[in-house]
Amino acid sequence: MRMDAETAIVLVSPAEIRAVAETALRRAGCDDANARATAQVLARAEEDGCASHGLFRLPGFLAALRCGKARGDVAPAAARLAPGVVRIDGGRALSPLATAIAREKIADMARESGIAAAAITNVHHFSALWVDIEPLVESGLGALCCTAYVPFVAPAGANRRFFGTNAMAFGFPTADGGFLFDQASAATARGELQIAARDGRLAPEGAGVGPDGAPTRDPAQILLGAQSPFGGHKGSSIALMVELLAGVLIGQPTSPEAGREEAARGALENTGPPNGGVLMIAFDPDRFGDPEGWRAHGERFFAELRALPGVRLPGDRRRRERERISREGVMLPTELWRGLRFEAGLRETS
Amino acid sequence: MRMDAETAIVLVSPAEIRAVAETALRRAGCDDANARATAQVLARAEEDGCASHGLFRLPGFLAALRCGKARGDVAPAAARLAPGVVRIDGGRALSPLATAIAREKIADMARESGIAAAAITNVHHFSALWVDIEPLVESGLGALCCTAYVPFVAPAGANRRFFGTNAMAFGFPTADGGFLFDQASAATARGELQIAARDGRLAPEGAGVGPDGAPTRDPAQILLGAQSPFGGHKGSSIALMVELLAGVLIGQPTSPEAGREEAARGALENTGPPNGGVLMIAFDPDRFGDPEGWRAHGERFFAELRALPGVRLPGDRRRRERERISREGVMLPTELWRGLRFEAGLRETS
Repeated sequence: MRMDAETAIVLVSPAEIRAVAETALRRAGCDDANARATAQVLARAEEDGCASHGLFRLPGFLAALRCGKARGDVAPAAARLAPGVVRIDGGRALSPLATAIAREKIADMARESGIAAAAITNVHHFSALWVDIEPLVESGLGALCCTAYVPFVAPAGANRRFFGTNAMAFGFPTADGGFLFDQASAATARGELQIAARDGRLAPEGAGVGPDGAPTRDPAQILLGAQSPFGGHKGSSIALMVELLAGVLIGQPTSPEAGREEAARGALENTGPPNGGVLMIAFDPDRFGDPEGWRAHGERFFAELRALPGVRLPGDRRRRERERISREGVMLPTELWRGLRFEAGLRETS
Repeated sequence: MRMDAETAIVLVSPAEIRAVAETALRRAGCDDANARATAQVLARAEEDGCASHGLFRLPGFLAALRCGKARGDVAPAAARLAPGVVRIDGGRALSPLATAIAREKIADMARESGIAAAAITNVHHFSALWVDIEPLVESGLGALCCTAYVPFVAPAGANRRFFGTNAMAFGFPTADGGFLFDQASAATARGELQIAARDGRLAPEGAGVGPDGAPTRDPAQILLGAQSPFGGHKGSSIALMVELLAGVLIGQPTSPEAGREEAARGALENTGPPNGGVLMIAFDPDRFGDPEGWRAHGERFFAELRALPGVRLPGDRRRRERERISREGVMLPTELWRGLRFEAGLRETS
């Protein structure tokens, strides 16, 4: 750990992050397995420069654990619903442990059957979805994953919030560790709107509508109103698909239902995501008809794609960040790090 | 059949369309099974008011059959690649027969395993994807389906054509027959650009770039240059996913490869799509953990969604059209209908 008083930034290693997060989670009521899995996911996000899904969120989870909204001491229950489908019931705990078990199960099932699905239920899902599927992709499998949320996004044609930000992630194994994307169905990230509001900047054109339903570029108004889906009716369809897959299909709340449940339970602000589900699909490219050829085929495809001037691929920034952070460590706001060390019962070292 | 000389429009029934298309396909070299499956798909598009995937395309297919680009006399070969994966090799025929067989196989497999995939290979795929998956959805299954094409779309950040228009369709069973969407990864349909060019109108903002790589609203220039993906980098990611699923995963050409193959074979203009693959996934909602609840849950979800003022759902226009056309018949350009009757060896009746 290295402190920089002037910028109020502290430099820590991923191992330190994991250790402190794990201790703080244990003190807030997590058992060992839940604390370890959750700390692992938070550290992974920080290692990849994805602060919005990192430690920044931990205080909210600690609050959720303490107020009983989320549980930390439940062992997820696995049930094979069909030869190709497994359900992992998280018992209203934070999502990482159930997700890790789901991955393990469907990796084996996908290798056996070619394709398999996991219905992860009753979890408070908070990680970036690429974190959830990356281990599958690194092990040579393809994966698709999605989760609903609480209502923030207006369906195409409407001007009221109904869909969640409804992220969907896809991964495919490649020679350099895998191609992954993870994208919300909203045109603009909610965090981006919050930062624009804080900094007094306008939101991008088409980002959403105010509480009156009228299009606006005032980010504060959009946060109170409804965000637009990306790409008009096409992104709206993707958001709808996510509601069906992560909600209706697996018997979990859709975003409007989760929003009402949060309201009914009087969920405190800043206690993280609602209770809900995640659908995860894994498939084994070795079982789709070109076991000898697909790796080289993919390599040729990506080589040609990357040769296009100006092309930007999802995950490239993350890969650069991971490389940089592995050398330099993670920069955290000093105040955040101090607070977490306090939560972990650690004395300040400087 | 009823002719209207003034508007040069003829009114025909879906049964007439099927019969004439089937005969024309047989005369161009199709065996009974291929002719029947293909005519069925063309008639279905016309029944749903989707002229762009209807008879309008038949002259091109007949040319493709006659010049040997596509075959009409091959029986698709099914091979079980894994418990959850089947390959249907179309033998370079038009896609409908292989697709029908794929549906039959994965419907059974999905009911057995919960989820299953079909790699449809070596077909000239031309139908709308919703036509391909609708029978699965009507039988109570969910489905996801996608196919690559030839390069028309520039990846995010680039300004040269690389991805195909790469449609993806999704369907989920509902009380009123099913929710389905089918959308290309391009911001604007190619046909829409062609019509705008013909009518001297501008293309929508952000539709694409000219051959020089510069953004333009001149539809003719975009047709020569590259279309933009919908929703910027997010739609670009969907297009990329489709290249991997319908190309690399199943050992079939990606769009740039298909484009080169077409060029190398000196494929004639207007002979329809290239040889390539389709990935189709089916899943059985009865096997995902809420067999008693999902139908009513879906109904409540859609009722609430449809109650939002202004909301537009994919498939609604198609449903209205189907209802209208079932009463009124299909309106076709007289010239198109005359030409097809000629191809079918039928004498004019008026």
